[in-house]
Amino acid sequence: MTELLSALQGIVGPGNVLHQGDLSAFEQDWRKRVRGKALAVVRPGSTDEVAAVVRACAAAGASIVPQGGNTGLVVGSTPDDSGTQVVMSLQRMNTVRGIDSANLAMTVDAGCVLQAAQEAAAAAGLLFPLSLAAEGSCTIGGNLATNAGGTQVVRFGNSRDLCLGLEVVTARGEIWNGLSGLRKDNTGYDLRDLFVGSEGTLGIITAATMKLYPQPAATLTAWAAVPSLEHATALLGLAHRHLGAGLTGFEVMGQFALSLVARHFGQLRVPLYQGTPYCVLLEHSDHESEPHARALLEALLETAMEAGCVSDAVVAESLAQAQQLWQVRESIPLAQAEEGLNIKHDISLPVSRIATFCSETDAQLAQAIPGVRLVNFGHLGDGNLHYNVQAPAGGDASAFLAEHEERVNTLVYDAVARFGGSISAEHGVGSLKIDKLPHYKNEVALQMMRAIKMALDPQNRMNPGRVVRI
Amino acid sequence: MTELLSALQGIVGPGNVLHQGDLSAFEQDWRKRVRGKALAVVRPGSTDEVAAVVRACAAAGASIVPQGGNTGLVVGSTPDDSGTQVVMSLQRMNTVRGIDSANLAMTVDAGCVLQAAQEAAAAAGLLFPLSLAAEGSCTIGGNLATNAGGTQVVRFGNSRDLCLGLEVVTARGEIWNGLSGLRKDNTGYDLRDLFVGSEGTLGIITAATMKLYPQPAATLTAWAAVPSLEHATALLGLAHRHLGAGLTGFEVMGQFALSLVARHFGQLRVPLYQGTPYCVLLEHSDHESEPHARALLEALLETAMEAGCVSDAVVAESLAQAQQLWQVRESIPLAQAEEGLNIKHDISLPVSRIATFCSETDAQLAQAIPGVRLVNFGHLGDGNLHYNVQAPAGGDASAFLAEHEERVNTLVYDAVARFGGSISAEHGVGSLKIDKLPHYKNEVALQMMRAIKMALDPQNRMNPGRVVRI
Repeated sequence: MTELLSALQGIVGPGNVLHQGDLSAFEQDWRKRVRGKALAVVRPGSTDEVAAVVRACAAAGASIVPQGGNTGLVVGSTPDDSGTQVVMSLQRMNTVRGIDSANLAMTVDAGCVLQAAQEAAAAAGLLFPLSLAAEGSCTIGGNLATNAGGTQVVRFGNSRDLCLGLEVVTARGEIWNGLSGLRKDNTGYDLRDLFVGSEGTLGIITAATMKLYPQPAATLTAWAAVPSLEHATALLGLAHRHLGAGLTGFEVMGQFALSLVARHFGQLRVPLYQGTPYCVLLEHSDHESEPHARALLEALLETAMEAGCVSDAVVAESLAQAQQLWQVRESIPLAQAEEGLNIKHDISLPVSRIATFCSETDAQLAQAIPGVRLVNFGHLGDGNLHYNVQAPAGGDASAFLAEHEERVNTLVYDAVARFGGSISAEHGVGSLKIDKLPHYKNEVALQMMRAIKMALDPQNRMNPGRVVRI
Repeated sequence: MTELLSALQGIVGPGNVLHQGDLSAFEQDWRKRVRGKALAVVRPGSTDEVAAVVRACAAAGASIVPQGGNTGLVVGSTPDDSGTQVVMSLQRMNTVRGIDSANLAMTVDAGCVLQAAQEAAAAAGLLFPLSLAAEGSCTIGGNLATNAGGTQVVRFGNSRDLCLGLEVVTARGEIWNGLSGLRKDNTGYDLRDLFVGSEGTLGIITAATMKLYPQPAATLTAWAAVPSLEHATALLGLAHRHLGAGLTGFEVMGQFALSLVARHFGQLRVPLYQGTPYCVLLEHSDHESEPHARALLEALLETAMEAGCVSDAVVAESLAQAQQLWQVRESIPLAQAEEGLNIKHDISLPVSRIATFCSETDAQLAQAIPGVRLVNFGHLGDGNLHYNVQAPAGGDASAFLAEHEERVNTLVYDAVARFGGSISAEHGVGSLKIDKLPHYKNEVALQMMRAIKMALDPQNRMNPGRVVRI
């Protein structure tokens, strides 16, 4: 292995091969559930260096764990504990290669931090709409490798939908230049979408061309109390009809989730949650003007109140107020962590089945574990819930997890399967859910996934033990 | 082979195995360029029958050509002339399996005609936005297999972007039930997008779940004369900024293309084309009202006229007028056929490079073939041009094609490559362009395509000789 280290040092320079000292930032996953041990962390500075590193690792029989901001939630970007894997950190490759405003496209290195990409687009007077809680740390390469979702999916889709083209280093250490500013290209199989969401198991994304959009003239945020999840879903339907593509955010938050924010973040004002089971945060982006945006949004809320879908609502009067509302929403995971360890889920369902799913599954959980508390919130516009399960009040959270995690997961995932849903909506599979897939994914699909993995990475060197076992 | 015929008859019934009489509807391609000879045309009535037919063909060593409406333009859905291939026509599988309005999704059989799918959505008060000239004959399965584009791509994307899930019969004759009403699902490789656009070479799409949208309150169409392609592109930029996602169509048409419509379809009034090199057809869909839509569209056109991007414009006053404008646009290919055989291209480019591409390539063609006439039109909003080449006036079209087709293709495709474009934007590869790909597509990409084909169809039984050779 010393030979491999020298080879790597020869490629990227000795300062960019880390193998001593505290490597926990690279070896530990974001939620601090698992700590691995890398042979080395390599920080290439160019696509050619990435390719040379892949070839050197292949020659030495070492496997590679690609890593961006290491903010993933399914333990997909940290090494195992064997001490033999090479972590390939893309963080030094972080430039915006170019913006083509007339083509509404931007080409960025994989290691570019999401927020930096947003800012580069904004500086060109354009919008890069991907937005999620980790945007200050996560990278475009990681976003694409995991097909990240976030808060704007109801309008702009997942990371996949924002991607026009990729540059990838294959498992053979070759460079595929698939960067493209094209909206249409039907010259063969969709390799781009195969790499997007493959979590580094088929190759390493080194750069991407992403779609940009015109900046809206105004963006307004509203907060509505709804009598039930059925009413939240009905409000979503009304919002689609009245706002069309102006609907850029639609989040739902359960009362208990909001009460945790109120309890643990006393400085935040949490509106309207005390007398209602659910609140909705609704964002409207408008290409005309703020008065026009406000008139439309207020008309929607009035219609919804008349229809009984909304019991009370506020529209933010300023950008600061809008940010505060979003901050309440984004604080739920942190408030939940303050309350203690919990069992997280990232599920999706057809929007039409969410209300029934929740009422049935809430009841099953309450029966299975008396006093259990549900922190239910998420991107209702996309049918994506973070349906998290917290120990009964005053209970020992660690003991709760140890005793109930498997059982709760099975109960929730079985229900998801019955309702035609997915056990991973936006976080991916990683190593956390790899052994769940065979229970919940079609065997024919799994066979095809294995066949593709073996075709493109026959030595199983790219992020092995993630997504699919071969 | 008689044994295979009996087996097929046993699966789908003797009346659904056609092997005598006139099979030209199945054996000849849409543009009547190539006529093949099938062993038989099989018309299964269910997914199970499709799977059984695939297994029977595999056992007999026969290859399969899946076929929908047989309206493709790249000779991808007709048999070769060996008399050994089985055409699998999906046309009997044509039901709308269900519409989930609250989830904005519709599940349809692959053989459902596009227009029938549009009508089913409309009957539920919703919009299925895929729209293209062949919509009265083409099928959803064919649309997905070729990732069809059409006139609404600027807002809604290609067929790929409208698809939530697929049911597929694999090359092994297994059924993958990947139908899904989910907006988010990150449980493994994106098999859906691998089958979309694979032109039947990896398996047979038997059903799909497609996205629906709310119907707009009003749709308006405008027609603008523009002084140049640069100005057309600038108008596109203005339209994106002013209309946002309200921009649902943006077509460009060159003067010569429009003059052919005027010449061959005297009953159609072609507006504003005589004094200008290009016209633009622009569609705006609005979720508020017709007066609002009209005010926005007129304001855009005024701004564009002040900026010099538009020299004159009309907004359709009625649905009938709007349909007439679209009819002019859709009549270009027919008018071109009336004028005589021509060399067709379906290219895409970054929008920002289209004007320069055209001025350079126009000049090269004029120099190479004095008097050559360009029928240039297409979906400028997506960077997609049908940059077609017609013989000099009065020339013999057949002789022109025989003498110049290869040379013109090379000249145009080489230019496309220099400008970062694609030689097949929305029509696919089929057998027409399969041997062009190695010249214009990255070799690393082609290697991966071959590896995937061999992984999923190792016997090369699914539509061999299309997309990629192995």
